[in-house]
Amino acid sequence: MELKRPYLLFLGDVPDALAAKTALGIVDWRRDWCVGQWRLPGCGADAKLPEMTAAEAAAAGAKTMIVGVVNAGGKLPEHWVQSIVDAMEAGMDIAAGLHKRLIDVPEIAAAAERLGREVFDVRRTAQAFETGKGVKRPGKRLLTVGTDCSIGKKYTALAMEAGMRARGLDATFCATGQTGVFISGRGVAIDAVIADFISGAAEWLTPATEENAWQVVEGQGSLFHPSFAGVSLGLLHGSQPDAFIVCHEPTRTTMRNVPTPMPTIQQVIDMTVALGRLTNPDIRPVGIAVNTAALDEIAAGKFLEETAAAHGLPATDPVRFGVDPLVDHLAAEFSL
Amino acid sequence: MELKRPYLLFLGDVPDALAAKTALGIVDWRRDWCVGQWRLPGCGADAKLPEMTAAEAAAAGAKTMIVGVVNAGGKLPEHWVQSIVDAMEAGMDIAAGLHKRLIDVPEIAAAAERLGREVFDVRRTAQAFETGKGVKRPGKRLLTVGTDCSIGKKYTALAMEAGMRARGLDATFCATGQTGVFISGRGVAIDAVIADFISGAAEWLTPATEENAWQVVEGQGSLFHPSFAGVSLGLLHGSQPDAFIVCHEPTRTTMRNVPTPMPTIQQVIDMTVALGRLTNPDIRPVGIAVNTAALDEIAAGKFLEETAAAHGLPATDPVRFGVDPLVDHLAAEFSL
Repeated sequence: MELKRPYLLFLGDVPDALAAKTALGIVDWRRDWCVGQWRLPGCGADAKLPEMTAAEAAAAGAKTMIVGVVNAGGKLPEHWVQSIVDAMEAGMDIAAGLHKRLIDVPEIAAAAERLGREVFDVRRTAQAFETGKGVKRPGKRLLTVGTDCSIGKKYTALAMEAGMRARGLDATFCATGQTGVFISGRGVAIDAVIADFISGAAEWLTPATEENAWQVVEGQGSLFHPSFAGVSLGLLHGSQPDAFIVCHEPTRTTMRNVPTPMPTIQQVIDMTVALGRLTNPDIRPVGIAVNTAALDEIAAGKFLEETAAAHGLPATDPVRFGVDPLVDHLAAEFSL
Repeated sequence: MELKRPYLLFLGDVPDALAAKTALGIVDWRRDWCVGQWRLPGCGADAKLPEMTAAEAAAAGAKTMIVGVVNAGGKLPEHWVQSIVDAMEAGMDIAAGLHKRLIDVPEIAAAAERLGREVFDVRRTAQAFETGKGVKRPGKRLLTVGTDCSIGKKYTALAMEAGMRARGLDATFCATGQTGVFISGRGVAIDAVIADFISGAAEWLTPATEENAWQVVEGQGSLFHPSFAGVSLGLLHGSQPDAFIVCHEPTRTTMRNVPTPMPTIQQVIDMTVALGRLTNPDIRPVGIAVNTAALDEIAAGKFLEETAAAHGLPATDPVRFGVDPLVDHLAAEFSL
């Protein structure tokens, strides 16, 4: 899946920022890929981009309109269909991460056919993958893993890409979820592929590259999450990381949406190494990323210090304190 | 997926027994569910069932015609389409495990619609599952796991079901692959579900049951296979086995279709326990099933004896020597 840039962000008439989380994430990380936003009357979200209609955005060079919003129930509101068709009329492809496939809407499918536009339903990929091969590929890979779902794996990977680039390193974010795909313009919603092809899709996502180039792979789920561990393991095997960062949130007691207790950081480190060495015998942890939002600054600092000491690895909160300690340690470990 | 019985087995005009492997497997394990076979001129396979046309089979009570064959390339030969429509005309549902979906063939879809018949494409399930919950359910579960793919997991599970029933135990085979689904009349091709739902599909397959009833779950892949470990892990978490049997083949050096070396039996035991205890803290190995076909009888006996001694578990070749030692040990471990 490769999206043409720049983007027009369609916000529809969603009630608030939460419903436009995907669009706001794109602006956070790729402001310069966005020519504008298109809001319908009553929209309660604001990505702080120039307001544009489809025609204005196309005139300004927009190549893809991103439907970066969700409405209650995950459905596509009827009155958005005309906006989507208008965008195709104006010359743009469409990309969306709705649960409902846009291409299953007859008016949208007909317009795409008639106008020769692409419609990317990021969550429901039609892309065919091969099964994983398990063969070591040239290049270096960094994967973010977690003690749970929704714990900062995407943010940490994007922050590492930015931090490594600022250091002059060759780093490329590799997206495995819908928001990540919009942010990188390429990728695969790995939890949406057929089970047989999880590691194969991860291999497609992280192909052979220059030996000193780093692919920074967005992790998914957790090896300890009873709903999604299979996805996490296929992604680990397929992306064959040389290095990984453990993402953690210290105040959770059970994992997201299940009664299963949280694993420890050490358990995640040990299991990631035990399983990851199947496809990369040299896999090693290079740091810990902690979401300390629930702690005050003193408690956060203390937790990070203790966590670092206990594991012999740098620990930071990427949002609050940046990822420099992690980049430093990675550079030292791999002589970069 | 629940198939109505009894079956008519459609063998088409495949050249040999290998192409009819699925149909022959059904006859091996469920002879009394099969009223007959339907062969077209030139067929080189023989399931040793009464020869019947669709109309004759329907008159004999057949409720589902199983397309239990594969032709070269996995495609559906054009001249089979009429036979499939004839079977629906005669009153039967259709079930197939071809890579090509029968329901995507317009003539077949139209006949199913017109006649109100079900068409089950076992490898391409349209069934929606929930995500796994990870909550312990009443009942007992036995899973077959492997050092590799295609190493006897289905055969061992079916032999255990038969052996346990012969002992008066309440045992039910739970199918996770296409042949298994035909043999049990129910199940899910677990490698064909969307990655997010692997463990959820396994939970659906092995629901809460009587505390002394055993669900004997057909394993898939291997935790050490770089193509399919994610499937194996989701199945392990979702089926939350109390007991597992390791299936092994002693002469393989690399895993199926990849250059990855085979793991040891001990590695598989340790990793299965380490990962499986997430959803069942009491998980334990109860035996080892070895495919000794490549060894002569003396070498086979010696290998089994050494393997049993090395792991403190019974070891047998289910095909050559039966599964009594495994049933004995299971019964002792769980006071059955």
